[in-house]
Amino acid sequence: MSIVAPTPDFLDGLRDLLGPSGWRDGADAAPWLDEPRGKWSGLAAIVARPANTGEVAEIVRRCAEARVAVVPRAGGTGLVGGQTLVDGPPPVVLSLDRMTAIRSVDAAEDALVAEAGVILEHVHAAAEAADRLFPLSLASKGSARVGGLLSTNAGGVGVLRYGNARDLTLGIEAVLPDGSVLHGLKTLRKDNTGYDLRHLLIGSEGTLGVITAAALRLFPRPRETATAWVAVASPEAACALLPRLRDRLGGAVSAFELIGALALDFIAQELPDAPAPPLKAPWMVLAEASGGAGARVGEALEEALAEALEAGAADDAVIAQNEAQAAAFWRLREEIPQANRRVGAVASHDVAVPLAALPRMVREGEDAVRKVSQGLRVNCFGHVGDGNLHFNVFPPDGATREDFAGLAGAVTRAVHDLVDALGGSVSAEHGLGRLKADELVRYGDPAKLRAMRAIKAALDPAGVMNPGAVLAMEE
Amino acid sequence: MSIVAPTPDFLDGLRDLLGPSGWRDGADAAPWLDEPRGKWSGLAAIVARPANTGEVAEIVRRCAEARVAVVPRAGGTGLVGGQTLVDGPPPVVLSLDRMTAIRSVDAAEDALVAEAGVILEHVHAAAEAADRLFPLSLASKGSARVGGLLSTNAGGVGVLRYGNARDLTLGIEAVLPDGSVLHGLKTLRKDNTGYDLRHLLIGSEGTLGVITAAALRLFPRPRETATAWVAVASPEAACALLPRLRDRLGGAVSAFELIGALALDFIAQELPDAPAPPLKAPWMVLAEASGGAGARVGEALEEALAEALEAGAADDAVIAQNEAQAAAFWRLREEIPQANRRVGAVASHDVAVPLAALPRMVREGEDAVRKVSQGLRVNCFGHVGDGNLHFNVFPPDGATREDFAGLAGAVTRAVHDLVDALGGSVSAEHGLGRLKADELVRYGDPAKLRAMRAIKAALDPAGVMNPGAVLAMEE
Repeated sequence: MSIVAPTPDFLDGLRDLLGPSGWRDGADAAPWLDEPRGKWSGLAAIVARPANTGEVAEIVRRCAEARVAVVPRAGGTGLVGGQTLVDGPPPVVLSLDRMTAIRSVDAAEDALVAEAGVILEHVHAAAEAADRLFPLSLASKGSARVGGLLSTNAGGVGVLRYGNARDLTLGIEAVLPDGSVLHGLKTLRKDNTGYDLRHLLIGSEGTLGVITAAALRLFPRPRETATAWVAVASPEAACALLPRLRDRLGGAVSAFELIGALALDFIAQELPDAPAPPLKAPWMVLAEASGGAGARVGEALEEALAEALEAGAADDAVIAQNEAQAAAFWRLREEIPQANRRVGAVASHDVAVPLAALPRMVREGEDAVRKVSQGLRVNCFGHVGDGNLHFNVFPPDGATREDFAGLAGAVTRAVHDLVDALGGSVSAEHGLGRLKADELVRYGDPAKLRAMRAIKAALDPAGVMNPGAVLAMEE
Repeated sequence: MSIVAPTPDFLDGLRDLLGPSGWRDGADAAPWLDEPRGKWSGLAAIVARPANTGEVAEIVRRCAEARVAVVPRAGGTGLVGGQTLVDGPPPVVLSLDRMTAIRSVDAAEDALVAEAGVILEHVHAAAEAADRLFPLSLASKGSARVGGLLSTNAGGVGVLRYGNARDLTLGIEAVLPDGSVLHGLKTLRKDNTGYDLRHLLIGSEGTLGVITAAALRLFPRPRETATAWVAVASPEAACALLPRLRDRLGGAVSAFELIGALALDFIAQELPDAPAPPLKAPWMVLAEASGGAGARVGEALEEALAEALEAGAADDAVIAQNEAQAAAFWRLREEIPQANRRVGAVASHDVAVPLAALPRMVREGEDAVRKVSQGLRVNCFGHVGDGNLHFNVFPPDGATREDFAGLAGAVTRAVHDLVDALGGSVSAEHGLGRLKADELVRYGDPAKLRAMRAIKAALDPAGVMNPGAVLAMEE
């Protein structure tokens, strides 16, 4: 069985089903076909914009029956091409962007039910209005949507304390590849009734179904938050600082981000409106701790940093004196991807390694990249507490990524080979999409890959759900 | 294809493979065939006790080839019959009790790798020796083993803060139903490379493979812990007390257990060596908060309880003055199942409901039980913070469970119907096993059940892995 292009009758049927607001095609479809770095556009026979779960189910059912590919799309912010199909018969792009209801907010249950099209910042606001915290946060929070965040198991800056998207999801409603609806929106903390299909669909990047809504976990809002910008001598020193802080602050450490000097150079160069950094050093850490009323996390963080400075475990530190200053620290961190995009990377990598191997990853990774071409620059930053680095490679000052485009493959191979040798992951938080599907074949566990293919074939025998994402097409 | 009994040659082959310590049969097999309440015994053609993952893989491979059932068993403490097959061709019982190595403890990574046969208390001790906490804890911690805890996604008293077994597992090694080995022991915090087979196997109760080892998450040891025993007027009052404490203490609330007066009566009656309760009331809460050094959780808990007493939100409270007193509070909580076992329940239920529905569950559940038979007594206790109640039904004082055995089915139906009507789960933390497999058919989502059956058939086409558990045999 193979995927086919939809017939004109099929498309007319979808138009009838969805009504005038419910579809786009031709030139009008363009906004639903791009990827955030502007590198390519996807195909679409039509962009379907269902208004509710019933319409999603009917679209998927019809596509499965007709063997038409379905490419789900939420915010379209994914960085690995999971939201765009660039060859083969044109698919139905299934956009969740009209399903933007927050169905319920229940402060007593610490749960919020959001449809797949809700933008992450709107989830934050709804939680805050109920005096609660939804802790998933990342640079694209103003455009990323719930469905995409879950289908890629997004990470971000709160993982150290609160976990990834999957850890923050109590239940999901999803349309399975046969068009049936999985009703799993319970907000229960404990429910051991059968296989956890929630976790199977989360992170499967639309290849096993379409998540249409999610019950998300809320947390008490921290009553006290302390934020520090710390200069350290090296990635080793950054890694050694974390257990020091955790020893003093326990689970109160809520973020621990590594930032290299090049990141600040790029921000200064590309984003003149960004705040000035509180201090600059070859390596810096943005650390945050938070707790309940009376937890005195500010004092504890200050004491821990004073001890670290005295012991030579940190070189300098600035603690934010107010919320505005803390927000400025965070804005610097969150502008890094934007500045990087403007400079233009030769190759970007989202990798995780064991904490102990992280300094080696930075050092040997730079060596490996320079072996490919001496002048390449590495802007390496990320969520050190999670062992997660964004290891992005840039052309020499004055050159452009186009000048070095021919080396991108060799750079990525060198970086990923090192990650694999260190026992790491070549996709920490972005997923595999289509760009990294081959890497699963190269670096993955053969037993895992076989089991994944068996599951895919069992749930999606027609192979219509986001073909080519996660699981590379077999020759 | 159907399951068959192993031939004498097949069994001889296993004996050769495993060596003299590696198998038991006949009367010698009895210790591996019981269930903890002594209600029944399982079948076994042989008990295989492999020494390592390679042997597990070879056993499973041979069984799949010969269509012989495999019933995995770890500590054997499960309460739903997942570890015992009582009819059909006798299976190979695959005991993990010789795989007791803690392969590594890595304080810097906050990770520990334990084989499936490691007893939970030994995991606790290994973590403590590295100045870390492994927070999964439950009454059977002295005999429950890692493999069983994961295959049932065990819960326990730490879920409120730290999550269920699945939330505490970074990676697994498992033997899949075809005998291949899934190598997934990475300790990475972030790894989005394909479907999360870890979460699929966790909670699948041995029906999709055998977990042979797990990388478990460790946490900073709390430097300060405060424990309180609180009298409250009702389950409503207990539920209302929790957000009060969390508002004051944030994420520092690490346990919140409901205890009814009947639980203490049973302990006094059956376990005279147990400590005296610090105070007794119709309903009580055992609350714990913990944090890092300087978190002052003791002060914060005391202040929060003082406010609650003043506001009439609690009736009385005793804060443990030292570790021994805190341990005595906890021992009372943990002796409840043992005392219950000695009294002998007519029917036991492990249910979860939304927090808001929990008081109704207690009240209407008692009404429903009394409608079946007026004199029945309910000992309802559990993890209120998780919405998880152990709703256990006992005969009238002076009668035995045998006198009321004929009513067990009607009692369970009444309780589970109520749970379902309240949007709850009929298995919160014990799993479905064989006792509750039919309940999934009755109360479960049809789309979920179909998807589960498709996955089972894809990964275990011969149907040898723990047949009849989780998924009831189809007629």
